[in-house]
Amino acid sequence: MDPYGLTRVIGQPGVLPQRAERLDPSLPLREDEMLLDVERLNVDAASFRQLRQAAGDDAVKVGAEIARIVTERGKMQNPVTGSGGMLLGRVREVGPQHPAQGRLVPGDRVATLVSLTLTPLLLRSVDTVDLSADRVDVSGHAILFASGLWAKLPPDLPEALVLALLDVCGAPALVARHVQAGARVLVIGAGKSGALCCAQAKRNGARQVIAADISAAAVARLEKLGYAEGLAIDATRAMDVHAAIVEATSGALCDLVVNVASVPGTEMASLLSVRKGGTVIFFSMATSFTAAALGAEGVGKDATLLIGNGYVEGHAELALDLIRHEPALRQLLEERFKA
Amino acid sequence: MDPYGLTRVIGQPGVLPQRAERLDPSLPLREDEMLLDVERLNVDAASFRQLRQAAGDDAVKVGAEIARIVTERGKMQNPVTGSGGMLLGRVREVGPQHPAQGRLVPGDRVATLVSLTLTPLLLRSVDTVDLSADRVDVSGHAILFASGLWAKLPPDLPEALVLALLDVCGAPALVARHVQAGARVLVIGAGKSGALCCAQAKRNGARQVIAADISAAAVARLEKLGYAEGLAIDATRAMDVHAAIVEATSGALCDLVVNVASVPGTEMASLLSVRKGGTVIFFSMATSFTAAALGAEGVGKDATLLIGNGYVEGHAELALDLIRHEPALRQLLEERFKA
Repeated sequence: MDPYGLTRVIGQPGVLPQRAERLDPSLPLREDEMLLDVERLNVDAASFRQLRQAAGDDAVKVGAEIARIVTERGKMQNPVTGSGGMLLGRVREVGPQHPAQGRLVPGDRVATLVSLTLTPLLLRSVDTVDLSADRVDVSGHAILFASGLWAKLPPDLPEALVLALLDVCGAPALVARHVQAGARVLVIGAGKSGALCCAQAKRNGARQVIAADISAAAVARLEKLGYAEGLAIDATRAMDVHAAIVEATSGALCDLVVNVASVPGTEMASLLSVRKGGTVIFFSMATSFTAAALGAEGVGKDATLLIGNGYVEGHAELALDLIRHEPALRQLLEERFKA
Repeated sequence: MDPYGLTRVIGQPGVLPQRAERLDPSLPLREDEMLLDVERLNVDAASFRQLRQAAGDDAVKVGAEIARIVTERGKMQNPVTGSGGMLLGRVREVGPQHPAQGRLVPGDRVATLVSLTLTPLLLRSVDTVDLSADRVDVSGHAILFASGLWAKLPPDLPEALVLALLDVCGAPALVARHVQAGARVLVIGAGKSGALCCAQAKRNGARQVIAADISAAAVARLEKLGYAEGLAIDATRAMDVHAAIVEATSGALCDLVVNVASVPGTEMASLLSVRKGGTVIFFSMATSFTAAALGAEGVGKDATLLIGNGYVEGHAELALDLIRHEPALRQLLEERFKA
């Protein structure tokens, strides 16, 4: 038995698949693995942004680079950002020792809830790259280990929406865990994750939710829906953000800051916006560990700094539940994530 | 007033000193700054290790590289690791608007509690490099902003010991905050920080403290003093560590894992050693944010992942208090950190 997939790592014995340079996605399937026919990749925001920039926003070039990375590494792990994303596909075979045995049958549509950075992947073709939705239609196969989380797609929600949701469902789940009623919350980044986090913070009874983003349109959308006060600002400019949050909170600063920015350099804005004794959750894959750790020390801010864990028990159910109960949020995300 | 030192940043308006490429350490002193005559730098462990490796363990070359970095950047921030350390010196001048006005006078010996990564520094000479203690004797001056934390050196403890302690005092302070009585604790890294964390965990009433390090001598020292069970192991080999911790805890895993390793690649060992619902504190400056965040997701581990904040209120007093009450720990550290 090999629940973490060590036998799929090429040339680095004892190294786990995520840290490995290369994985072996070849068949046959082991007894404790599951085989998926892959239809779509949802590349994580930081990685997709890097790929777009490197390719000058050319969808065909982005697709070619993804094909190159997967051929070289046997997985979709962006070598620059180190991050991945997740995928949607159909069950082809469930190994007799895989925990999904008896719960999934060939043909079932599932999304993976583990990162692409540790999922053996073999692509036959990269078909359509949707630059606006960080989404790539492909054909190929992927292998899920016994420890790998997955979700069966619910029948009542559009697949594209579900995939987009599941990709980031750890963020609203951690918000649900950390927002107390009456809290002041700042969410940095007003894209998909940001919208989910704002809506969840409201549901938890936050007294004030502020959504900060460089895009005035993005923050206006959340403001219009009543999920947040919008703050159109460049979050890499820490002192500007600090001044705006001091004003918005009458000097109290925020109890919780959730960082889901897709650009680097927003650690200090987060640290300067949280009150002494408050909490910052860094969910952005562009977060620099040293910038966060040393930054807090540098400004003498005693706050709890959390690494946004992509896995929170019940996170998929929570995100799907959130979208079912928030029609405005569903509409917003459906417009962006059309099939 | 400029409490965060923005006016000391060269060529990047609005950028805080820590993120800046270059700082201006020149005089005259501003009204809200403090000027120190610098005598010694304590370079952080990850940075010092990198410098040593690049210089082939040649103390003179390490010194030359430190001089080069400080000349180029106006601060001691290792361009590879991004990390710094702290310094010891003597007060030369306290600006009339600096908060230390009235509490410190010229001639007082102080250590900085903010990172060297944001401290304007000008070196006239690099004198002695102590490869065994991550310590460099220098002469020059440094500037402390109004927000910059400092500690006056206590008269009852040797300076070298105090400086070594203050450099890492955030770690035992966070351990004090997070260890419940009866907890099982794993500390990865049995050097200076590791010793302090183990001793503090014991004081908090941990039922089991395990110290893991690749150096059998280092873990044997802590075991002999009664601070921990020693586990001599390569913590970059996650599966080996996991197996050892399963055995040591009879399958329970640890409530708290404290990572103070000075090498990269120990995130997965930390994640596989903590129980579901437990906490990992990453204090190592070699921590990769994405490896930690995606690693937890990859193995489906719902645990609280903390970025070790270098500033915890009262951390300096707590560390000094710990060493005063633990003669064995004091002796251990004094042997390593001779004046």
